[in-house]
Amino acid sequence: MAEPASTLAAGSVGSAGLAGSAGTVETQYVDLPGPVRLDCGRELYPVRVAYETYGALSPRRDNVILVCHALSGDAHAAGFAKTPPEESTRDGFGAEDRDGAAPRGLGWWDGMIGPGKAFDTDRFFVVSTNLLGGCRGTTGPSSADPATGQPYGPDFPVITVADMVRTERAFLDTLGIERLAAVAGGSLGGMQAFEWAILFPDQVDAVVAIASTHALHPQGVAWNAIARAAIMRDPAWQGGRYYGTGATPDAGLGVARMVGHVTYLSALALNDKFGRRLQFADDIRYTLTEPEFEVESYLRHQADSFVRRFDANTYLYTSRALTYFDLARQYGGGSLARALEGMSARTLLIAFSSDWLYPPSASGEVTDALRALGKPAEFHVIEAPYGHDCFLLEEARQTPIIRQFLSQHTLAEGQTGG
Amino acid sequence: MAEPASTLAAGSVGSAGLAGSAGTVETQYVDLPGPVRLDCGRELYPVRVAYETYGALSPRRDNVILVCHALSGDAHAAGFAKTPPEESTRDGFGAEDRDGAAPRGLGWWDGMIGPGKAFDTDRFFVVSTNLLGGCRGTTGPSSADPATGQPYGPDFPVITVADMVRTERAFLDTLGIERLAAVAGGSLGGMQAFEWAILFPDQVDAVVAIASTHALHPQGVAWNAIARAAIMRDPAWQGGRYYGTGATPDAGLGVARMVGHVTYLSALALNDKFGRRLQFADDIRYTLTEPEFEVESYLRHQADSFVRRFDANTYLYTSRALTYFDLARQYGGGSLARALEGMSARTLLIAFSSDWLYPPSASGEVTDALRALGKPAEFHVIEAPYGHDCFLLEEARQTPIIRQFLSQHTLAEGQTGG
Repeated sequence: MAEPASTLAAGSVGSAGLAGSAGTVETQYVDLPGPVRLDCGRELYPVRVAYETYGALSPRRDNVILVCHALSGDAHAAGFAKTPPEESTRDGFGAEDRDGAAPRGLGWWDGMIGPGKAFDTDRFFVVSTNLLGGCRGTTGPSSADPATGQPYGPDFPVITVADMVRTERAFLDTLGIERLAAVAGGSLGGMQAFEWAILFPDQVDAVVAIASTHALHPQGVAWNAIARAAIMRDPAWQGGRYYGTGATPDAGLGVARMVGHVTYLSALALNDKFGRRLQFADDIRYTLTEPEFEVESYLRHQADSFVRRFDANTYLYTSRALTYFDLARQYGGGSLARALEGMSARTLLIAFSSDWLYPPSASGEVTDALRALGKPAEFHVIEAPYGHDCFLLEEARQTPIIRQFLSQHTLAEGQTGG
Repeated sequence: MAEPASTLAAGSVGSAGLAGSAGTVETQYVDLPGPVRLDCGRELYPVRVAYETYGALSPRRDNVILVCHALSGDAHAAGFAKTPPEESTRDGFGAEDRDGAAPRGLGWWDGMIGPGKAFDTDRFFVVSTNLLGGCRGTTGPSSADPATGQPYGPDFPVITVADMVRTERAFLDTLGIERLAAVAGGSLGGMQAFEWAILFPDQVDAVVAIASTHALHPQGVAWNAIARAAIMRDPAWQGGRYYGTGATPDAGLGVARMVGHVTYLSALALNDKFGRRLQFADDIRYTLTEPEFEVESYLRHQADSFVRRFDANTYLYTSRALTYFDLARQYGGGSLARALEGMSARTLLIAFSSDWLYPPSASGEVTDALRALGKPAEFHVIEAPYGHDCFLLEEARQTPIIRQFLSQHTLAEGQTGG
């Protein structure tokens, strides 16, 4: 595996001290003018995309950063929502942990996007969309199927990360944006960033892929299969046609979320946060059905809050897409290096030492392949205990790395232009 | 953590070359003469115990080894069952993996128990029982509640590992066995061994605890909580009163088994065995509901075969018992060392490098505590890639360690007696 350029020890402090808020924002919506062609062979139309923007588009339209979200995110990446949803999407471990509760309506990557932040809205025009298949404004399985007027449900086409990216491409066209200074994201968001750089090599200057991979490892495929099985085995799922029936597969979606949640954390993080502390400190209660340990109660809470804000079918489609994602299979005939041959973007990879779902080794493999091809790749492993959720939490230590990477980029572009 | 006495490199070969079979065996049953007092305050009566024995009891009755099984095992630990069950309990990863399929009716620890094997039936009288709360012959939630004549279901008392051990103690009384040359087990079986040595310190000469712990770590508590949630959220569970209704919570129990199965393996093992291979080698099929990856198909198979042989309520009760287990809380006021003060048994601990559910560090903590108390503890970490399931698979490398440990024991006893 590639040696990271730096391994930041725990406790090092970022330089985001002067950072500010992206302000109050409202999610907007655009209907794409034409159909989106999908990998499965179908075309999808109509397609609506929910999005937000932060900062100002430069006259030369050359300062655009597209931010892509992970499995359960949405377009509201930064600032305060003008109309806060009932449940915040900032439900990462530490997002609750540090401040008691995340401020209602705060974007899921607010610590990273804003004036003076990692994605600096004083310099960049940051665009964030809800991904294809989503349930937060972009067309997905809960949207109306024009053929029937009813929600698609299981008739929604099975989509891929490439389909998400083609949708984002078509969406940016409606804003008159051709080139991207960078595509950035964590986890599934990082997969979209890689996919962008391969599908549209001439339109992407830089990739920022955080806690991501070129292909989920088999254990990750297994966890996702289990999460989907939990949903589909819930009788309330009804083959995916639960909309309007008065029943939703909350039981199964809750189990799926619990599985996901534990995979997003590290064993150490769970130990530090909960240990084996009991709900009732004096002793156990000898109950099967009620939580006895604090960690059990926490998982139940996570499940309950998630099912109030998320659509089970979107979970299925998105989970499937991220397990399919495999650059070597898709573009390299099994070879990662061959898959990356056409990439021209500079690449920044950040991974977290305790992330066992998207381990540093996966980012290292991408780095190795890029370097073997003579392509610029910068790779950092941040020592942090919170597992995969670090990409939402370790803002202070990601910030200087990303700022420096983007600043080099801008200089280089400026030199080219001058 | 304690330094292990040895770390066996992969590929080292054990000395079980001359080992033979325990032969054809039949599970027997005994009804305890009196009630079992439980930690929850209730008494359980009647209690039937299913058991098997291998080898011959010595005239002095001083060669008895009690073998305790893990979550999904049963009394049939060795040899061929005279009446093979429909589904083998030998459903560990490699038990299938090495030979295609486990021979029908072979005991779950057959590689470890028999003439010339780790638990040598030429020297020892090995006794194996189905644990309290089980569904393979010993009284559990599917047994008839004498108060109603109907299966207990959720009226079965919530039990602990200590309750299992008290039941085993009462059962051995019916065989006229007072002392144990050793108590041995892996995982939950190792927990029972520790509990034996603390509850009955004068009756246990040696403990063999494999891939076990003094208390499951919080992530393990979380996995167990998720598995139980999957069962209890299945409407077919019916509050635990599903017996005789024609519906059983197979969907939820299947998800529970999938979660368990992945935690029993290592990421590396899944990678080696399945990688990201597709069901249909040429490409993906764009399906939500059917397995696309081999690992998905494997998990579905594991779930389907498990629900045919196992009772969901037994899973709940056993899972709860093993999460409660916490020697420091139970016996030490929070201190592991204090909890072990009364132990007089010699202790052998074996852990596996890739076991992330019962990691070597947990066995190391027990070793440290015992040594700090001046008590004899021998600790080995075996380098092996198969995760927690190693305790069922790495027979060849466990065998010489266990044989040597038990041989020292017997010699010492003989010297004392001479």
